[in-house]
Amino acid sequence: MKTTRTQNLLAAALIGVTVFTATIARAADPLPSWNEGKAKQSITAFVEKVTKPGSPDFVPVAERIATFDNDGTLWAEQPLYFQALFVFERIKVLAPQHPEWKDKEPFASLLKGDMKGALAGGERALLEMGMATHGGMTTEQFEKIVSDWIATAKHPVTKRPYTEMVYQPMLELLAYLRANGFKTYIVSGGGIEFMRPWTEKVYGIPPEQVVGSSIKTKFEMRDGKPVLVKLPELNFIDDKAGKPAAIQHHIGRRPITAFGNSDGDLQMLQWTAAGSGPRFCLYVHHDDAKREFAYDRESHIGRLDKGLDEAAAKGWTVVSMKDDWKTIFPAEKK
Amino acid sequence: MKTTRTQNLLAAALIGVTVFTATIARAADPLPSWNEGKAKQSITAFVEKVTKPGSPDFVPVAERIATFDNDGTLWAEQPLYFQALFVFERIKVLAPQHPEWKDKEPFASLLKGDMKGALAGGERALLEMGMATHGGMTTEQFEKIVSDWIATAKHPVTKRPYTEMVYQPMLELLAYLRANGFKTYIVSGGGIEFMRPWTEKVYGIPPEQVVGSSIKTKFEMRDGKPVLVKLPELNFIDDKAGKPAAIQHHIGRRPITAFGNSDGDLQMLQWTAAGSGPRFCLYVHHDDAKREFAYDRESHIGRLDKGLDEAAAKGWTVVSMKDDWKTIFPAEKK
Repeated sequence: MKTTRTQNLLAAALIGVTVFTATIARAADPLPSWNEGKAKQSITAFVEKVTKPGSPDFVPVAERIATFDNDGTLWAEQPLYFQALFVFERIKVLAPQHPEWKDKEPFASLLKGDMKGALAGGERALLEMGMATHGGMTTEQFEKIVSDWIATAKHPVTKRPYTEMVYQPMLELLAYLRANGFKTYIVSGGGIEFMRPWTEKVYGIPPEQVVGSSIKTKFEMRDGKPVLVKLPELNFIDDKAGKPAAIQHHIGRRPITAFGNSDGDLQMLQWTAAGSGPRFCLYVHHDDAKREFAYDRESHIGRLDKGLDEAAAKGWTVVSMKDDWKTIFPAEKK
Repeated sequence: MKTTRTQNLLAAALIGVTVFTATIARAADPLPSWNEGKAKQSITAFVEKVTKPGSPDFVPVAERIATFDNDGTLWAEQPLYFQALFVFERIKVLAPQHPEWKDKEPFASLLKGDMKGALAGGERALLEMGMATHGGMTTEQFEKIVSDWIATAKHPVTKRPYTEMVYQPMLELLAYLRANGFKTYIVSGGGIEFMRPWTEKVYGIPPEQVVGSSIKTKFEMRDGKPVLVKLPELNFIDDKAGKPAAIQHHIGRRPITAFGNSDGDLQMLQWTAAGSGPRFCLYVHHDDAKREFAYDRESHIGRLDKGLDEAAAKGWTVVSMKDDWKTIFPAEKK
């Protein structure tokens, strides 16, 4: 009898420990880099109401679609979109094979180190450089180029790898949503194949949940082996009004929550907000010149103007990076 | 002591029952509508080797991508693609709003009941009728039209709902693959938004795992409410060489297994087969005139000619519907 009682007590104690540990785990803050306040509270309140069984706002797991812009929302976008910096480097690498670039804008200015001249042609110039560097190779070749670049390239200001220029509070938010049954998607103006090689490792978002801008591809047989060749021909620009169209095309469901930082995300947030049932829209506001960059209504990159007004009018959450985030970037990896 | 012993025996018995039930469940044939033979064996052998931990052919869950054609592979496609039959019905419904159709081919012939005349223009005529009936409305309006149609429309020969014109052995195969960690996708020449309203219910495939042909959509504000308007303008034809391109665009990973029934699926199977590591390609061969339809090299719909040759040359599995399938369609729902 004594042995049995001791065993029972031991078992009870073990169960107690297990329950206690589980309680601590549950009670742990899933968003430790977020300061307590309205923004953080609005997130957890939304997640709690849509996941609570029996709640009038309960949303089945299959419908818990969350879409995130990338540039300026999940990682930084200053002094210039990181993909543009990738394009510039590729132009320098490819220049020996393109002697004609010496006399052709915007390539000529860029190769002379005149960044301002290279960007004088605006979006059209960027697009031209993008197609010249992304097209004319197979999807596998491009994937390798991106993977090699992202593994070694450094941000021009902070000198950190681009994959460490991601926002720690947003990484926590992605994980928190997924832990609550959400399927997290990127819906970015950036190139779909520029993002896919690293989003799973950096954000936990697999290639099939990445939506972005794209050029056309062509299936071909080369030496009896099928390849997909990237053509220097625009397929789709996943920005502004393009974002809801791309969401419908790729996902086929309306998100119940969407996250952005610029007017380029406004239509995605409007589309998300206009669905029936509980909805949550959030803008990241870059107002922290000291720890990151401060820009909004007047910026050429990531302009947030109409979006700020609409967020105020509709009661969307606006995150102050300065006030709402304890830390901006993850700790440096040694 | 007696009570304790009895309880222990009871507990042991319960555990035994549980283990026993689990064993039965594991041992049960996951493909009961498939006759024993080479085709069935090739499927289970592939699934076993890629899912067995420690196997040299083991494939991580995230990479277990399986793509399925729809027309002729998951559901029937005779006497005509079901979506074409939907288009014809829509033209009749919409005719009063389009008096000009009375004098315009292919609409005029169709409205006179002259199917042959309507189809004389071939693919171009079908496409024109498709855009006239799929464009000019919002995505939500179109979804409702498809949902209403699929709930009531009947196959012209069998008089069964189209959602019962699906192949029972393929339903089992989809479930078997998913139970083994595969993500199952449709990659069809059919309209992406024509399939999405019912694929989850019929095949267990959610909208975000449906890839297909599409027309363009445009984001608009209507009375302050955002809508996506379907334009009568082609976006993408997901057939032949389009299939690998669409797979790359939507999924961003190469499938490790692919299933088709026609030359329209050949490039998808080639693309799948050319990846590194274990691969499995399968053609469904329509050779059962009695229980379904018999057609291959000479058919205008679902022609399987080059594909049969390549399957023989490459050792892909070719399923004889007559010999390999015990049943074709699910039991009728009362």
